[in-house]
Amino acid sequence: MLEIERKFLIDRLPERLEIFPHEPVRQGYVAADPNGTVVRLRQKGDRFYLTVKSAGERARIEREVLLAADQFEALWPATEGRRLEKTRYYLPHGAYTIELDVYHGALEGLFTAEVEFESHAAAEAYAPPAWFGREVTYDPRYKNLQLATRGRPPA
Amino acid sequence: MLEIERKFLIDRLPERLEIFPHEPVRQGYVAADPNGTVVRLRQKGDRFYLTVKSAGERARIEREVLLAADQFEALWPATEGRRLEKTRYYLPHGAYTIELDVYHGALEGLFTAEVEFESHAAAEAYAPPAWFGREVTYDPRYKNLQLATRGRPPA
Repeated sequence: MLEIERKFLIDRLPERLEIFPHEPVRQGYVAADPNGTVVRLRQKGDRFYLTVKSAGERARIEREVLLAADQFEALWPATEGRRLEKTRYYLPHGAYTIELDVYHGALEGLFTAEVEFESHAAAEAYAPPAWFGREVTYDPRYKNLQLATRGRPPA
Repeated sequence: MLEIERKFLIDRLPERLEIFPHEPVRQGYVAADPNGTVVRLRQKGDRFYLTVKSAGERARIEREVLLAADQFEALWPATEGRRLEKTRYYLPHGAYTIELDVYHGALEGLFTAEVEFESHAAAEAYAPPAWFGREVTYDPRYKNLQLATRGRPPA
């Protein structure tokens, strides 16, 4: 699956966020290859995933499989020191779904929003809502791998 | 699981190798992190594995899970360009089992033997049989990841 997305910082969360669907997410990184390949374990609610992402910024090839809980637990220790936790909220925005991430732990206070697109043309045409802050699609410091390993960048 | 092993080149295969248990192995590398972590997919006979190996030479932490065939097939494309095939023979040698690998494809003609130990003391005490060639435990060129990506080193 080809992944095309844009990512934005959020300075202030929308009100009444709890009315939107949301779920806890914890994820950790098993390996980051210099060729750009990243291997991630993620628990989303009660579902477990292993994801392999290839290189790139706005477009990446992503291969994801559902894991059984015992497979996940056996591999999870390999992510030690490269983990993060967040709550992900799903907000409708026209034809799109905004994935709003509220980070916890060492990243408390950080909020990001991602929108995924079917094409580069759609990504370019997208008009973010007024409450979105600075775009960080191309800022590697806000990739979750970087956040998990290096923490929150200075504002 | 902590993995302690020694690895040797084999110049000439033992006779009547086919009488020993053996199975086809194909494996591919999903990612190799500069911190030494390697993520490997492997099919051994009709079993499928995902393995995460941490850094090191004679001692590595290895985490392995059995995958379902469909999980394996979904991830396998991520190993393109970093694969190898071999037949693995299991030869008894005193208290140990020699894993003798006969490589195929681009690595045809290469044979290696590995023996796994419970402790560093046992590894040091091990006397290899006379038909073993040069030890390559500490030669990174003979790691399967290197063989899969760079091919067979010059003799």
